[in-house]
Amino acid sequence: MQRYFLDDQQQIKKDDWHHILTVMRMQSGDDIELCTTTGQCYLAKLSLENIPLKYEMIQPLDVVINKGKITLIQGIGKGDKNEFVVKYATQFGVDQIIFIEMKRSISKMDDQTWHKKKDRYEKIALESARLAHRNTVPTIDFLPNIKALNGDFSHAFVAYENDRKAVFLDKIEGIKNGDSIALLIGPEGGIDELEMALLKDKGFISVGLGNRILQTEVACLYGLAIIDGVLERKR
Amino acid sequence: MQRYFLDDQQQIKKDDWHHILTVMRMQSGDDIELCTTTGQCYLAKLSLENIPLKYEMIQPLDVVINKGKITLIQGIGKGDKNEFVVKYATQFGVDQIIFIEMKRSISKMDDQTWHKKKDRYEKIALESARLAHRNTVPTIDFLPNIKALNGDFSHAFVAYENDRKAVFLDKIEGIKNGDSIALLIGPEGGIDELEMALLKDKGFISVGLGNRILQTEVACLYGLAIIDGVLERKR
Repeated sequence: MQRYFLDDQQQIKKDDWHHILTVMRMQSGDDIELCTTTGQCYLAKLSLENIPLKYEMIQPLDVVINKGKITLIQGIGKGDKNEFVVKYATQFGVDQIIFIEMKRSISKMDDQTWHKKKDRYEKIALESARLAHRNTVPTIDFLPNIKALNGDFSHAFVAYENDRKAVFLDKIEGIKNGDSIALLIGPEGGIDELEMALLKDKGFISVGLGNRILQTEVACLYGLAIIDGVLERKR
Repeated sequence: MQRYFLDDQQQIKKDDWHHILTVMRMQSGDDIELCTTTGQCYLAKLSLENIPLKYEMIQPLDVVINKGKITLIQGIGKGDKNEFVVKYATQFGVDQIIFIEMKRSISKMDDQTWHKKKDRYEKIALESARLAHRNTVPTIDFLPNIKALNGDFSHAFVAYENDRKAVFLDKIEGIKNGDSIALLIGPEGGIDELEMALLKDKGFISVGLGNRILQTEVACLYGLAIIDGVLERKR
């Protein structure tokens, strides 16, 4: 069944009208799933006679209980790598993505550029969350450097190719339901040594994500799959 | 350091000459890593005076011991989804990819089309293995339907969205180093019930890959990351 996210006023978003009416060709009386901004989802019946589109709530749906807050801190990549990360990390269950400019980031980001990009990334996250049948949409933020990063997580990890022997699955056995977990992935050029020292000061533990070199845009998926796998088991 | 795969005659492949000479602008005496078709890798010194390019072996490299044979059986996807799977599954450590036409595959494949595609997929796998610093390149095959699938694996799993409670990490705790492990991922439209019955007859165990709906091209990455994570721990 199609799932849509409501806006703050509990209305079907204008952006979704076209999808409902023209792409899906839905009719009044058709059932859909609607999720509120707090992550509660309902079975609902559409009423399409008027604009704005209306609906009638039928019953609440069982939703997956929030298993923890998973934050991906991703070194800014070039080209469409950031879009790739938003799209697929959303499917892999991330709750927050923080793009961060790092010393070896080839693409640079200023506040003005970020303002434009953020809108686009949020749309991608919303659409990906809808298709993945998530009940929440990840938030997306930007930080100008590692110094600006608040290390306030229950567990914080950084993927570091020189630490491949620190098997990620061993390092995360201790995570519990409800913990906040951060995973930092460097940009294409890797993580500078001074940044690494700063991250360790902030409590980040370096981990290996397997014995191969992963491109930056998929390294996060390797890590998120393993975090989700462990949390699924503990649920 | 750059890594290249040698051909059956232990020569640097013609396809790599351009990369070595023009893209990387290497000089005689530069060090590279070379891997044989059997997965042994060496540090070597280039000698570029003549065509074909020559090299001198310096010393064998420690390579990751084969941890098991991981086979991805992937329902044929449309557009460039198959290329996506080859590229990234190679980075996630797959040893064999079998594309399979399934009842709900939107794109169809005949032997003639496959012949053309196979070449392209093998090139993508080779390049991805090189970048990931693997010592082997996955093989790529095609089967016309589930019936043609040989179920001869130590452990065979099929991702099935109706079985989300069968947590993958629990199901694969028993895998051991050296085992042959298969993971089947259906096409966009999912797996037909008759196909599912046939798979179970062949010994496939259905598993859930998290509590969201994953697009077919990344579902394999979720599964491969968890398999690799468990094998890394057992190595």
